[in-house]
Parts: sequence; C-alpha cells; structure tokens
Amino acid sequence: MQRETLSVKYSGHKDVSLIVQKYGGTSLGDLDRISRVADRIKRSLDGGHQVVVVVSAMSGETNRLTDMGREVAGAEIDRREMDVLTASGEQVTIALLSMALQRIGVRGHSMLADQVALITDSSFGKARIQSIETKNLTKLLDQGYVPVVAGFQGVDAQGNLTTLGRGGSDTSAVALAAALQASECEICTDVEGVYTADPRLVETARRLNTVTFEEMLELASLGSKVLHPRSVEFAGRYRIPLRVVSTFKTGPGTLITTERENMEQVLVSGIAHARDEAKITVAGVPDIPGIASKILGPVGHANIEVDMIVQNTGVDGLTDFTFTVKRQDYDRVCRLLRDVAQEIEAREIIGDNKIAKVSIVGVGMRSHAGVATRTFDCLASENINILMISTSEIKISVVVAEKYMELAVRALHSEFELDASVDK
Amino acid sequence: MQRETLSVKYSGHKDVSLIVQKYGGTSLGDLDRISRVADRIKRSLDGGHQVVVVVSAMSGETNRLTDMGREVAGAEIDRREMDVLTASGEQVTIALLSMALQRIGVRGHSMLADQVALITDSSFGKARIQSIETKNLTKLLDQGYVPVVAGFQGVDAQGNLTTLGRGGSDTSAVALAAALQASECEICTDVEGVYTADPRLVETARRLNTVTFEEMLELASLGSKVLHPRSVEFAGRYRIPLRVVSTFKTGPGTLITTERENMEQVLVSGIAHARDEAKITVAGVPDIPGIASKILGPVGHANIEVDMIVQNTGVDGLTDFTFTVKRQDYDRVCRLLRDVAQEIEAREIIGDNKIAKVSIVGVGMRSHAGVATRTFDCLASENINILMISTSEIKISVVVAEKYMELAVRALHSEFELDASVDK
Repeated sequence: MQRETLSVKYSGHKDVSLIVQKYGGTSLGDLDRISRVADRIKRSLDGGHQVVVVVSAMSGETNRLTDMGREVAGAEIDRREMDVLTASGEQVTIALLSMALQRIGVRGHSMLADQVALITDSSFGKARIQSIETKNLTKLLDQGYVPVVAGFQGVDAQGNLTTLGRGGSDTSAVALAAALQASECEICTDVEGVYTADPRLVETARRLNTVTFEEMLELASLGSKVLHPRSVEFAGRYRIPLRVVSTFKTGPGTLITTERENMEQVLVSGIAHARDEAKITVAGVPDIPGIASKILGPVGHANIEVDMIVQNTGVDGLTDFTFTVKRQDYDRVCRLLRDVAQEIEAREIIGDNKIAKVSIVGVGMRSHAGVATRTFDCLASENINILMISTSEIKISVVVAEKYMELAVRALHSEFELDASVDK
Repeated sequence: MQRETLSVKYSGHKDVSLIVQKYGGTSLGDLDRISRVADRIKRSLDGGHQVVVVVSAMSGETNRLTDMGREVAGAEIDRREMDVLTASGEQVTIALLSMALQRIGVRGHSMLADQVALITDSSFGKARIQSIETKNLTKLLDQGYVPVVAGFQGVDAQGNLTTLGRGGSDTSAVALAAALQASECEICTDVEGVYTADPRLVETARRLNTVTFEEMLELASLGSKVLHPRSVEFAGRYRIPLRVVSTFKTGPGTLITTERENMEQVLVSGIAHARDEAKITVAGVPDIPGIASKILGPVGHANIEVDMIVQNTGVDGLTDFTFTVKRQDYDRVCRLLRDVAQEIEAREIIGDNKIAKVSIVGVGMRSHAGVATRTFDCLASENINILMISTSEIKISVVVAEKYMELAVRALHSEFELDASVDK
C-alpha cells in the first residue's frame, strides 16, 4: 500500500476535547435518519465536546450517480468528470445535516473540500491527501459552529475536484482528526463495533472492546466491512484513537488503539472471512526468475487486484503458481492468462471460482507458536480441506471451498475460545 | 430591478466566433436527452464555432433538493445551506454532459463556479454576479476544450457557494457571453422561439424572427416563461445578441436584439398573459402622503412581490388603493393587511383571487396612439369587463376576470393582426 503522507498546518488551540465524527451512507439514508444524526451530534456537544462532522453521501446515491455516469460515458470514462459527478452526493448531505442541526439549535455549517482546503494529488477516483488546512475549521469551532465536512472529496492544486476512492469518507475523517489533533475519531455506522466474527455467521460472536490497529488492518483487509484498511493505516500512522460505534444504538463500540492492555491473555482476536473469491493456478511453468511478473504483470495492468500469491518450490525445474482474485474478475483474468500461458509455455491453467478465505487474526499469535497447528487440526477434524495457506505475523489465512466457509468460521471461533471469552 | 453590474477581466482573443449555449432542465431531463444535447453541441463545433456551454440541473432536480431541504430545516431555512444543496444539481449535469461529449470525440470539460471564478455577492439564494474571470475559460478554448459550466451557481469572496435565484442559469449564460465577448448567446429550450401569443392558447400564434430587448423584457415579466427578465435585462445592457431556440428541433428561433429593422411596420409584437393573479383593494383610505408605503410596506417586508399598483384620484379626501400579487400570496396579503387597515382607518378590504392579466406589447406603439383605444374597444365588443389598467411606453396591461382570459388573448391577437401577419 502506497503511503499517504499528510502535511498539516494546524492553527488551533486545545481547551476542550475535540471529536471527529464520521457518518456513513446508511446513517444518512433518509431525512428522518439525518435528523436523528443531528440529535446524536447535539448529545456529544451537550457532553462538553467540540465536534467536527464528516459525512458520506446518502446510501445508494454514489452508486446511482456512478451508474448514470457509466451509461452516459460508455466505454471510456473520464475520471475527472466522474469525480465531479460523484462528489455531488456529499454536497447534498453536508447541507441537509447542517440544516437539521440548525433546526435543533446547533450551528451546523457545511464545508466542501475546497472550503476546508483539503488538498489531494490529481489521481482522480483514488486521490491521496497531501495537506489539510485547519485554519478555517478551528475558526468555525472557536465561533461555536459545528463544521459539517464533505467526506470522500478533495481538491487538487489546480482546483479540480477529486475523490478519494473506496472508503474515502473514513479516510477524510481520520485525516481531519490527525490535522486537528482530535482526541478521538468516531466512525458512526450501522454495526455496534468490531466483532470476533461476523454475527450473521456466528451467533456467539462478541463485540471487542478494543482491537489494535494491526489487527484491525488485517480484519478490514479480510472482509470485515466495518472500516476501510486505508483509514485504519492512516489512523495508526498518526496515532489517532479510532472508535467504531453504532449511530442509532448506545454503547461504547470498539476502540482501535496502538496497544491492548491485557494483550498477553489474548491469542486470537477474531475470525474474518471473505466470500466471492476465486483462485487461478498456472501449472507447470519454468521455475526461473521473472516468471511471477510475467504472470501477474498483465493482471496488474488491467487494474485487477490480486490478493494471495503462493508459489511452491519447484520440482524438475517446473513450478505451480497460484493466486486469488475477486470472483467478479475471474473471467477476465482467465482470458488475460491464455496468451501468457502460451508465451511462458505453462502446462495448463486451472481455476476455481467457488472458494472463500478464512483468516485468524490476533497480535497474541506473534509470541505464541501453535496457532497454525491448532487451526489446521481444527479444520481437519471437520473434514475441511485447505486449498491454500498464507500467513503474516498476526494472521493466518486459509482458502477453502466456499461451501465449507461458514463451518470453518464457526469451528475456528470455538477452537480459539472466542464464544466464551469475556469482553476484552 | 436592482442593477447587476459586471466587472470583467477578459483575457482571450477572437479568431473564431464564440457562442455560449445554455441548456435548461428539460433539455437535460434524462441520459438520452443529454446525449442528444452533446450531438447538438458537436454540430455547432462542426459549423466552425467555438462553444461554451452553460447547464441547468436535470428537470425536477432543483425542486427535489429544495423539498428535502425544507423538510429537514423546518420553519427556519438557512439560505447558505440551501445554496450548497441546490447547487449540487448543476454539478451533476456538467459532469454528465462532459462525459457525453467525450463519448462522441468532443473534449468536454466541466467547470464549477469557483473553477471559472464566477464571483457573486453573498446574498444566498439570490446572489448577484460581481465579476467573471475569463482566463480559465479562454485557456480551455484555446486548447480545444468545450467548457461545460454549471449555471445558477456562483462563489462569493469568502469562497461560499451561492445561487443566483430564479432564472439563474439564463443569467449565468448571458453574463458569460458578455464576459467572453461572445458573438451570440443561445438559450436552448423546449419551445421554438418567442411567439405572438402562447401557442397553447392561440392556435394561430406565430413565431417571431426578432424581438427587441425591451419587448422581451415586458413579455418575460408578463408570464411568457421563455426567458427570465433578469437575463434579458443583462443581455440588453451588455448588448449580447440573445437567441431563443429549440434544443431538439432545427430552426432559427427568435433573435432578441436592440433594434428591429422593419420596426415601423409593427405596431404590436405579441399578446402576453399571466394567470394565477389576485388583486386586493384597500378602499376608503385617507388620501394623504405616505399611505402607499403604509399599505405596501408590510407586504414588501414579507417578501411578497407586488405587480400592478393603481391609485385613483381621491374624492372627499378618501381614495381606493388597488394592487395585484401572485394568487399563492393572496391569503397572506389579506392577513397582513387586516392590521394595517385598522391603523389607517380604511373603510374595507376587497379582494379577488380569480383574475388574470393580459398585455399588449410592442415597441411600435411608442409612436402610435390608438393602441389603447383599439384594445378597450376590442374587449368591449367581446363583453369583457376591464378591472384594472396599467400602461408603459411599449405595453398596455389589463386585468380581467380569469374566465375571460383566453377569449381576451385571442380577440386581441386577431385585433392586432398577429394571426395573419407574415413572420417579422
């Protein structure tokens, strides 16, 4: 992941604790919800906090706009125009929420990216934040306003509108929290926090009180859709305490921090899963330098994201090269590889688009061997065949046939005593 | 009407003829129409013109946004936030139209008000244009781009988004045409030009080839919804040839100019009408100075627009004071006047909310007496009673009972030989 470095001009002072609150599309899905979000912000103010709000577009709006753009544009989409189009969604919600705040006596004040001076590079559709001015925001805060900032959008040095891509509003919120030296960044969403597993899959899943940035990064990358990895990475780098909370239910949510206090006791924090994966094996390829880039080069050029990559030690100068992609990209990848396979004289291409990934995540496993063994034993005892394995310091991912995914998640959740564990 | 003075920094040069084309909401009502607008722009380019495009929001969109804002805001509406909200509609259409242009090989390039540098004062909801930079636009034109500018919106000196109010996109287009010293400003709409009367009312109504700014100003003010008076006034002041044309039908439309060539021959250019009017008479008020402002002061403060005002010479120190308003404001005005009537000891308030206004417009009548007589005779011969009369140099307006409106328009259209006239 390319690093996003933030140059910040901070011109405020810190008498009271400042919170940045980010509200997602489902929290702003209709006018009634917008009014309830306004009430929630008022409660934070009544609690003695200063608040800067960051919002997404109303749920479904960004997709609606994108679909219109695609239909009009045809095959060649101008990213600059697409950004102008989609950024309008957040412009609507900052105005509506500011009005809803004013209705209950709170001085909401909408701010577009250029009014904040949230400057990005010019990579339309996936712009990276370069600098944030805090002058305008702190001035508003000092005057008793609640700035309501359009997430997802930025402005480049030439004054073009840009958007930050997937998870953009989360990133906006974290970046603003960093720039403003906020005491906390709240991601207000439709779940009550980060869970040991997806509660829709595992009935006994439990909300975590805390989770580390590293763990969250793995969980987010692995299909826990609570937070976008980019915003987690950003928060970790600038050490912004990040809290995932429910917009409409009360509760402490999950705090994402640098260290967990009773870390030793926790071996595994959660079991993540990612459905809709596919794997492709290029079998019998010459085991020589440069073969990986010959295979993955065309895939990368086509802007297809590759997830796991596994290459076994070769036998007889030949090796098998396997990688996974999102299922939606499977057909395109197979087509792309047909030419490559001929060129590198691979024996064959074998694909499987009915797989899923299950991952065991926890900073505790750093200092404890045996997590891998327990994982493999557990799956074996359920007769689940492991198709691929990939590990990092705080994570073990296994690929299994999709039909076994739920069973694997539940079995591992029990195996690592997450069902029974007291809230950490 | 308050004067809108434009300070312009023009930094272009004029090798080819530059046209500003403005497309309204119905011309951009769906994606198919947007593509057809793109085709129309391409035809203008192929004809050797440079084109700057100004767009409204998709039809219905501004109302949809306004309704949402009103519902969220309740009684007190923050105009600044309403402008942020409604300006998003034009942001969508500039992006979509730019994409549609690119699809057919034209280099469309969207421009928001702040990207143009279209600077207004800070009267949110009815901002007045103060200055327009042409540097950015002429640079794009020189590079072969077609700038697609968001109409209706501006930005104030502090960087706040503003909107220009009713007819705002027309005004944007005319102001840009003035700033860019364009050879013509085309208002592309769903009618084929300016007619001698509303063709839905008068079957024999004819399209006018030309009409003067003054006439157009009267016609626009009097309910011909083709152009907003503000844009006409603006075009007249800066002597921008303005043309009303159909977006989807070919034809020369109507050119609005300073002088019509064969002016002598034309006595009356058209018959305009305005339905949905109401009149209020404050009867038996003391005929003393200041009485008009006592009556109309509260109405003006409530932001209610007063149209015709008639006061007769008093008899016995008492007089009757009559004025007209839009029918939707009738009840509010009656309530407002109850207190005033007591204060000034008026005898009574008499109202009628079933009236309409019919107007005869033509620069020719300046030098010809007799138009008034012919008008009154014509209506009398149809047994239509005239309730109020108001005249200007190039216009005679009469108020009649609403049920007689259509008959009055048709009778006058014949009386002044507009049915039979060859296209002027």
